[in-house]
This record gives sequence, C-alpha cells and structure tokens, in this order.
Amino acid sequence: MALVVCKFGGTSVATPKRIINVAKRLVAKHEAGDQLVVVVSAMGKTTDDLMKLALAVNDSPPPREIDMLLSTGEQVSMSILAMAIDALGHQSVSLTGGQVGIVTDSLHRKAKIREIKPARIRKELDEGKIVIVAGFQGITRAGDITTLGRGGSDTTAVAIAAGIKADKCEIYSDVDGVYTTDPRVVPCAKKLAVISYDEMLELAASGAGVLQMRAVEFARHFGVVIECRSAFTDEPGTIIKEVTDPMESAVISGIAFDKSEAKITIRDVPDRVGVAAQVFGTIAEVASNVDMIVQNISEDHYTDLTFTTPMQDLPRLKPVLEQLIHELGAREYLIDDSVVKISLIGAGMKTNPGIAAKMFQVLAEHDVNISLITTSSIRISVVIEGEDIQRVVKCLHTAFGLDSDKVFEETQLSAEEMKAKMEKGR
Amino acid sequence: MALVVCKFGGTSVATPKRIINVAKRLVAKHEAGDQLVVVVSAMGKTTDDLMKLALAVNDSPPPREIDMLLSTGEQVSMSILAMAIDALGHQSVSLTGGQVGIVTDSLHRKAKIREIKPARIRKELDEGKIVIVAGFQGITRAGDITTLGRGGSDTTAVAIAAGIKADKCEIYSDVDGVYTTDPRVVPCAKKLAVISYDEMLELAASGAGVLQMRAVEFARHFGVVIECRSAFTDEPGTIIKEVTDPMESAVISGIAFDKSEAKITIRDVPDRVGVAAQVFGTIAEVASNVDMIVQNISEDHYTDLTFTTPMQDLPRLKPVLEQLIHELGAREYLIDDSVVKISLIGAGMKTNPGIAAKMFQVLAEHDVNISLITTSSIRISVVIEGEDIQRVVKCLHTAFGLDSDKVFEETQLSAEEMKAKMEKGR
Repeated sequence: MALVVCKFGGTSVATPKRIINVAKRLVAKHEAGDQLVVVVSAMGKTTDDLMKLALAVNDSPPPREIDMLLSTGEQVSMSILAMAIDALGHQSVSLTGGQVGIVTDSLHRKAKIREIKPARIRKELDEGKIVIVAGFQGITRAGDITTLGRGGSDTTAVAIAAGIKADKCEIYSDVDGVYTTDPRVVPCAKKLAVISYDEMLELAASGAGVLQMRAVEFARHFGVVIECRSAFTDEPGTIIKEVTDPMESAVISGIAFDKSEAKITIRDVPDRVGVAAQVFGTIAEVASNVDMIVQNISEDHYTDLTFTTPMQDLPRLKPVLEQLIHELGAREYLIDDSVVKISLIGAGMKTNPGIAAKMFQVLAEHDVNISLITTSSIRISVVIEGEDIQRVVKCLHTAFGLDSDKVFEETQLSAEEMKAKMEKGR
Repeated sequence: MALVVCKFGGTSVATPKRIINVAKRLVAKHEAGDQLVVVVSAMGKTTDDLMKLALAVNDSPPPREIDMLLSTGEQVSMSILAMAIDALGHQSVSLTGGQVGIVTDSLHRKAKIREIKPARIRKELDEGKIVIVAGFQGITRAGDITTLGRGGSDTTAVAIAAGIKADKCEIYSDVDGVYTTDPRVVPCAKKLAVISYDEMLELAASGAGVLQMRAVEFARHFGVVIECRSAFTDEPGTIIKEVTDPMESAVISGIAFDKSEAKITIRDVPDRVGVAAQVFGTIAEVASNVDMIVQNISEDHYTDLTFTTPMQDLPRLKPVLEQLIHELGAREYLIDDSVVKISLIGAGMKTNPGIAAKMFQVLAEHDVNISLITTSSIRISVVIEGEDIQRVVKCLHTAFGLDSDKVFEETQLSAEEMKAKMEKGR
C-alpha cells in the first residue's frame, strides 16, 4: 500500500466527462490499495474567465480580492471531482487550501508556502477517503486566502507530498513524461525513465515547460519523488529523484531550447570598477530577468556587455537602456530578437570532460555560428542566431546518442485528434 | 453616523454593470457617513449553473460537496463587488462565511446559524472599510463549509445585523417594499410604510414572497429593524419592526394569496381517538408540509378530514394516502388542485372584533363560496375554489379600505423594460 499524491492540471479536468475519467482512474488506484491525496487545478479556462470578470469592474483589482476570486476555480473543480468519485461508490472529501492548512506568506498572487499542516488530510485518509485538495491556493496566518501564482498547483502537490511524507507525487498532464528534447521538434526524442532534480531544474530553466521550477526545487529540498505522466494513458512517465549513483547518470540527459529571449548588447562601455553592478542593478529594478551575461576583455578601456532577457520584458527595458547609455557614456545598445538558446544538460558532464568541445565541434560541422556561451557544472548553453532550430537540435540529439529507435507518435496528433483522445478517456 | 447592513440579491449583482451600480450606491452612503456591511448573493443564475455542473457527474451529489461548490457563487460576487468599490476609490474587503465567523450546525444545504463572531467585521469597519460578506454560507465548528438553503442570504444579513448591533438591516431587491397585496394583481395596492414582525411572518407564511420567513423570525427574536427596498430606485421601502403602539396597528395590513397548494379530503374516516395523529404523523414522515387542517363533526361515527399541502408534495404523498385509506378503513381521498388560499392579515384584528364576519360577508356579496376557514389572532385564511383571484382580492382590498389613490405603475413594466431600467441603474 503506497501513499500517493496525484496532481491533475486544468486540461484534465476541463469538462464533466474528463472529471469522470479522472475519478475512474483514481478509484482504480484506490481499489488497488493506494492511499490517495489528489491536487486539482481549476477547470480549463476558468481562471482566465474569472480574470475577465474582474477586469470588467476594475482595471487593476486589489491582489487580495483577485486571490479571493481566483481561489473559487479550484473549489469548483475539487467538489465536482469529489462528487464524481462518490458516484462511483467511493468515499471522498474535498478541502480548500485553508481547510488543509496550507499556510503561506501574505504576498497575494505569488504567495510562498510556509507550512503544511497534515492533521486533517491524515484524519480523512485514515477514514478510507480519497482526499481532494485545491491546488494553487493557501491561507495566511491571519486567515486570508492567497494564491501561489500560475502553475502553483504543482508546488501544492509537492509540498503536500512532503508534508504527509508520501511515497510519490504523480503529476498528471497532457505531457506524458520528460523527453531528451521536445518531441514535436525532434520526433525521435526519447522519454527518460529517470532524471535527477538538478538536471530537471536546468532543463526547466532552459526552456523545457514540463514542470514548474519551484515545484522541482521544493521536491529536491524535501526529497519528494515526482513522476510526470500522462492524464490520458496508463504508460509509465518519468521519475524525478535524487540520482546519486554516477553509473546511473547519463552523460547527456536532454537538450532544451528557448526562442523567447532576446540578446542585448551594450557597445563600448567604459571599463571601470562597478560598471556591471550598475547596469544589472538598474535592470533588476524594473524587474527584468537577465539570463546569460557575457563580458569580453576590454580593448582601450572599453568593453561590450551582452546579455539575454525575455522578449516580453523589452518594452519596459528600452527606456532603462536609453538612460544607462547616457549615464555610462556607452556608445549604443543593440537588440537581436532572432536568437535561440540551446542547452545540453547532463549530470554526467561533471565526470566526462570534453562535452563542451564536442558540442562546439558538432555545431561547427553543421555551419552553426555560436554567439554566446555559458556553462554550469551540468549544463552548456549556447546562443545561436536566426537558425533552423529543428536542424540544430536534431544534429546534437544524434551526435550525443539520444535518438530513440522508435519515432515519437503521440505528439504528432493534431490538436483535434488529441482532444478526441482525451474525451475518450484512457 | 449609522451602522447599516445592506443585502443585495442575485438580480442586483447579476452583471458587472449592475455590480458597479451597487458599488456606486454603497460609496454614496459611505460618503454620507454610514458604516456599511454588505451581504451579497451569487450573481444571477450562478447557483443554478453550478448545480447543473454537479448533476452532470452525480445524480445525487453528497450535500457536503454541494455546499463546497455552491459557496463559490457568493465568493465570486463579493470579490467583484469589492473590486468595483476599490475602483471608485473607497476601501473595501470581502469575507467568506468562514472568515466572518458565521458558525452554523452541520446540516449541509439547510444549516442553521448558531453564532456570529463580530470581531473581524468590527476590525475592518474600524479601519474605515466597506465590509462585504458572502450571504447564504457559514462554517461548522469543524471548519466545513455549509449553506443556509435558498434565500439564506436574507438570514445572513439579519444575523449579522444582530451580531454587530447594526442600526438597520436594509434588504435590497427588485421588490421595492411590502404591499397591501401583490400589485401585479391589484394595481391600486399600497406600499406599507411600516409593518410588524408578526404581520410580516403571517404574510410570508400566507404566500407573500418578499422576505424569507426565517430572516423575519431571526429579526423579531433579536429586534433587528429591517427595511425592504428597491435595488434600483432611491425611494424609501417598508420598515419591518416591533410595533407596540396599538394606535400604529392597522386593522388590516395586507391580503396574501397562494395558488401553490392543493386541498385533500379523506372521506368517511372512522371517528376514533388518535385518528388525526395517525394521519398527520404518517404524512409528516414523508416530510410533506400540511397547512390548513379542518375536521368536521362526525356523523354516524364517520368524519371527513380536510387539509392543504404544497402541490409539489403530491407525487410522494399519493402512495401514503392510498396506504392510509386502507389502514384507516376510510372510503376514499379526493384531491382538488384548483383551490386558492386568501389571507387577511392585521395586528389590529386582536382589538377589532367582526373582521372575520365582514370578510365572509364581502365574499358572499360577490358570490364567492368558501370551502375552508382557519384563523390566528392576526390572520383569517379562507380557501376558495376555482375563482378569479384578481376579482376576489380586489373586492376585499377595496372593502377593507386598502386601495391607494395612485395606481401602481412600477410592476406594470414588462420584463424587458424592467431589465433596461435595471441596466440604467438608479
């Protein structure tokens, strides 16, 4: 008998029919002897619809009231799921973040979990019930409802798994596991059976959108074993856990890529002490996330500063850059929004020298020009310009021996076919 | 400066536009110096829509989960109203039944309020905020969400007014006050300036649908002054309070009528001790509400038992009646579903003899045949058959001097005109 936390995202509970399918799945697990705590997101587009309603009466609604509003989304989906389980003859109880005792700080709309009180969940589990918990929400010590920010349901699931010492935290979604790279781009991408927390974090930070980074960090911190799996098939997914045996570590676990960043270069910055602090301190003030930073050696006391930043931050970044050029006495700034960042990730890199050299060689052989490079102990990222990503990722995927024998079919389905498959259930 | 509880029903908060109108109204009162606690229902048809969703996964969903689901309706409307007030530059805070501390018993779907903890409301009022509270919901001592049953928002408002010792509880709806009779039937019906709790209770029990009876009982018990008024105009409504001065008591305050009941007669029941107890005990077991009961003197040790009951109870009542006929050795039962109950209500009846006689005389003059009569100290009810209600109510209304000089216009508006008026605001 295992104690398992199962998290279902908004797509898997978008309609009554899908909720019934989730209920059937849970009941089968329950009958097989597992104790279950289920974390659900709001149904489909509920959160967006509620925000539209809010914006109809106030252009910038108070965050406390937004949380009060949005938290109803999960309250609806969890009670409907409890009813669906009841209809199948199993006992179930749904609990709000407040009822569970998911205590957060009071930063509305992006609250952080401070504590999980496991007493109520344990009591209901002991009574043989399937316990359903609202994802994405918590309660402050003063009793106000908070939300954890978009995608916070993954974090709720992992935090509860940690709080009740669950054997596993299963994250169900329309993605059936973690792949060596995006199978929509490289059809022979392989599903990984296991990946370490560190690798998963690097993958997530490098653009792979399978799991929320915060949830993975939480899991690493508390040693929660996660399984990412499909809400619509029974196939095993990918296990994310601490991998300590170096024999288990693949040299390269995956290749991530990210087209959402722009490359910015500030030309001819006078090279004096504290100039980098001034530049990136000023940028941090407008809350723009800077990713890769490269500073070349200076020439005649002038240097070039290059960094990447999310494209969506550009509008508020531009006036800051104008001001910086003026203050620093730099020549100009250049924005290149046609770049792609490609990252090779693998815990085995630490013990296998020469990975970087091999990567650069493969890219050179395929005439790919690298414009930026950064590395961590388990990741090498390069920025390349205006390239056919599919071609580049494919050649790296093959060169590092990641190709699967069988070509990935699942994601070859059109959106319509996928929907039909989902409605049909498992 | 007055401390006022204002309750707005589902129609008055059905759309963002109407919520903005309610917000404007509240802000004007707040600027005039009143401290305000606002109780809201769910927007428009929200509760019905949520129930539809529930029934899509379970024919008879567990009551606890229904309460979990339905309570989101008020949580949405109250947060949107708080946002609308914020947009007008006034501070506001919305609170769930649980946050306010509306403690109920654990009878889900028809919970009764046990206690109101005024601390949180007082704190927010002291900070100058307009406090918005979810109607219709509470929380058990164990922390589970309950609902008070349909129309429970009126009770929430009155209970909070009692809990915080408010000066007045204003109930805003699409009905602008309590009338001598239904102005849609008798256009010269008069709006009452004041009515006593007892009269209001008798009116509500006799079919006038202005206020929930429980809310009025609660108000009487705690001495809360209620004002029923329009959500769409500024005209004064009707005050419901303890009326002790007999000079203030009208002989007749109003005429109520009810077409929703059927008359049932059990013919030739053997007249022995305990027969009435047996009949009405058995009927009570199927939870049918029996209203008027009449037993005539017996003839040859057989008697007829007649009573009225809501039409909607008939399907489950019929098999019980079959069984009773058999057990009692009675002849048969007859159902008449074309009856109307008409009630004359007035606290002044106590001190004015002859009201009943006058009523019967008026009816006789108009060729109306009475088939049942019951009375209380401030009410006379008669059941008549297959009559033109409008004609009968009108003649009584005139005979007891209730006609107004001005013909009621408001409710002459078509549904479309009413809607347009509501969208336009006040």
